Amino acid sequence: MSEVLGIGIAGLGTVGAEVARLITERGDQLAERAGRPIKVMAVSARDRTKDRGVDLSGVTWEDDAVALAARDDVDLVCEVIGGSDGTAKDLVEAALEAGKSVVTANKALLAHHGTDLAKRAEANGVALAYEAAVAGGIPIIRALRDGFVADRVQRVTGILNGTCNFILTVMRETGRAFDDVLAEAQALGYAEADPSFDVDGVDAAHKLALLTALCFGREVDFASVHIEGIRRISPVDISFATELGYKIKLLGVAEIDGEGEQAGVSQRVHPCMVPVSAPIAGVEDVFNAVTVDADPVGSGMLQGRGAGAGPTASAVLGDIVDIATGRMAPAFGRPAVALAPAKAAPPSAHVGSFYVRLMVIDKPGVLADITGILRDEHVSMESMIQRGRDPMEMVPLVLVTHEVAESAMQAALAKISDLDVVVEEPAMIRIVEG
Amino acid sequence: MSEVLGIGIAGLGTVGAEVARLITERGDQLAERAGRPIKVMAVSARDRTKDRGVDLSGVTWEDDAVALAARDDVDLVCEVIGGSDGTAKDLVEAALEAGKSVVTANKALLAHHGTDLAKRAEANGVALAYEAAVAGGIPIIRALRDGFVADRVQRVTGILNGTCNFILTVMRETGRAFDDVLAEAQALGYAEADPSFDVDGVDAAHKLALLTALCFGREVDFASVHIEGIRRISPVDISFATELGYKIKLLGVAEIDGEGEQAGVSQRVHPCMVPVSAPIAGVEDVFNAVTVDADPVGSGMLQGRGAGAGPTASAVLGDIVDIATGRMAPAFGRPAVALAPAKAAPPSAHVGSFYVRLMVIDKPGVLADITGILRDEHVSMESMIQRGRDPMEMVPLVLVTHEVAESAMQAALAKISDLDVVVEEPAMIRIVEG
Repeated sequence: MSEVLGIGIAGLGTVGAEVARLITERGDQLAERAGRPIKVMAVSARDRTKDRGVDLSGVTWEDDAVALAARDDVDLVCEVIGGSDGTAKDLVEAALEAGKSVVTANKALLAHHGTDLAKRAEANGVALAYEAAVAGGIPIIRALRDGFVADRVQRVTGILNGTCNFILTVMRETGRAFDDVLAEAQALGYAEADPSFDVDGVDAAHKLALLTALCFGREVDFASVHIEGIRRISPVDISFATELGYKIKLLGVAEIDGEGEQAGVSQRVHPCMVPVSAPIAGVEDVFNAVTVDADPVGSGMLQGRGAGAGPTASAVLGDIVDIATGRMAPAFGRPAVALAPAKAAPPSAHVGSFYVRLMVIDKPGVLADITGILRDEHVSMESMIQRGRDPMEMVPLVLVTHEVAESAMQAALAKISDLDVVVEEPAMIRIVEG
Repeated sequence: MSEVLGIGIAGLGTVGAEVARLITERGDQLAERAGRPIKVMAVSARDRTKDRGVDLSGVTWEDDAVALAARDDVDLVCEVIGGSDGTAKDLVEAALEAGKSVVTANKALLAHHGTDLAKRAEANGVALAYEAAVAGGIPIIRALRDGFVADRVQRVTGILNGTCNFILTVMRETGRAFDDVLAEAQALGYAEADPSFDVDGVDAAHKLALLTALCFGREVDFASVHIEGIRRISPVDISFATELGYKIKLLGVAEIDGEGEQAGVSQRVHPCMVPVSAPIAGVEDVFNAVTVDADPVGSGMLQGRGAGAGPTASAVLGDIVDIATGRMAPAFGRPAVALAPAKAAPPSAHVGSFYVRLMVIDKPGVLADITGILRDEHVSMESMIQRGRDPMEMVPLVLVTHEVAESAMQAALAKISDLDVVVEEPAMIRIVEG
């Protein structure tokens, strides 16, 4: 059996501690899979005294995580500190420049600096692996990077944030409001005290930017992701979705949008209505899923746990064993220097169907005003629901459109919301076939 | 860019032709992913004159497929002939012994000779890759072989045959009988003229035997797979399944069964009732899916197209590019010599819940006779449905049991079917949580 692969772990939160535990307690299994022993040589974390449920005697502690990169006994750095800049970035750069492979679960870091880090890895002949960064328990990076290499991806769609999926699932099952369910998610540990990274869609957007680079061979382009979160989803829209045969999911969607010279990649994270019969509609609670439509493999979906110590550590160790055996792949599936420059599709290029809920004063002529605007903007309607009759009071009016340019829909909505009889900001949710 | 990887393709049916087409038409894409050009050097197929929609000018034809293994310009043999023995086996053995890697879609060959072929590959320092052999469009081999390497698999469950899944889906949606829907599947090209490999569960069992070896680190043990097909599934059982909240699926299930010294791997392919809410219950038509329950990754499912030229060729090319880049893994995830000997769990060890439909003469005392037998065999009932009343005529009586040893259930069924009032062979379907 060949020489030991020495690991330096930066960050001993729940993920780092689980990685250390698995390396320690499943040493024989990992050595068999890797063809060589894997050993934790050094770690770095703030608190040396905390009981993490793993025996770290004999392991060197570094106060400065970046020092792990310089250690002779560390062949591979496992970065599970998190954050797009600061220590995580300094460490990963230092490790790659020192000729050490890096395994990371850090989507924010890669979303902001992925292209540059991939180039550094390749220039130094080492690996930058990040299965754990996108839907941890789901082997989607491996599938896209190594598996579907002969395919042309048309679209990638994902439930990429377990917190949002949990909140939307509970809202639908119970009829409760967003704030109420968010508080439950926080109590259960599914959401942070500051939940904005999750519920505002930023975490999902980080992951989508990485999937986009892999699927379309483009440089990572987080800045172009259109991001809307789930704070504005209301029980009334969930109830209408059910009535119309849809579920509301926070999806990340990336696809080629536009024609010819105008064509680019559109990357969008926003609430969607998906038909209940779509496979992704069945993915509930904290589970994540990624659907890939590609030629010639067709449509497929991978689902599993996206976060948590176990799934994330499992993914980290898959990457570590790959590197231990010499199974190396460029971070984004092809040489980083060969990635095409990012080119965002113009937002006006997007075409889709839309759910719109208006709160209108129930009086004669309202419908004529609204349908007149839709006609003028060439928005064609598939169905309409007016719930209840309550003369001169506020009632919901729900419209579902046929396929139309989003720019036309937005123009119509701007005019509609200016009508005196429309008393709240219209609620608009994009319909996606799943 | 380094030297060309020369491919020899044995078999130019729809899959072989699609592999050749992708290598030819997507040469630049594949070269970028592989880091070197990939080129078809030689092929072997019966009919040289047939138009396969791909330009094979400049490619050498071999009358004898086995001759591909000896060609100096062939570095990798792609075997898509099929069959557990004969030419396919001769070719794969010859290629491995000649130090050439093999990519195959041949589940029958690997189910029967997988351990031996894996040993030959390792002895010669080459790869034996078979992503295309199990649920083609689903990257499950990659996930189990390279991804979940730190995990301990508790159970693997799959919809592994698209023909059966299509037939069961249409039977449920239309209420039609098996023979009728089989004929439709044959007309659509989803089932062979001789459908027995598919509908009797043999094809699914081939695939399950490979998943079992990968998941549990055991030698391939096709002979121990308990196999039942779907010919006996009737519309009445599908209707009762719906009423009880289940769907009937042909599943392959492998798990550790039994305790201590008795423990072994149970491998079963048979119709199952799964709760409609289980992810695998939502996988319909010709789609395949594999669910893995493992520690620490948790429960996950991969679904997609299991067969057809496109998905299968996509998987073949994923393997070819792996080998082109030097990403090598032992066929079953660890050295073939380190695979544990196969050890089947004793059938008596299996415990589960059961759906049983009896056709009984509706007269006083029937229920007492039946429940008496169940009590004597310690089979505890969860629910019972007697549909209709028709004194002295035949009526269905449906029982759903709590968890019980299958041996007890079988003993009870033997006694029950001996009762005069029970007029048909009991229909028994295992209930699986999915």
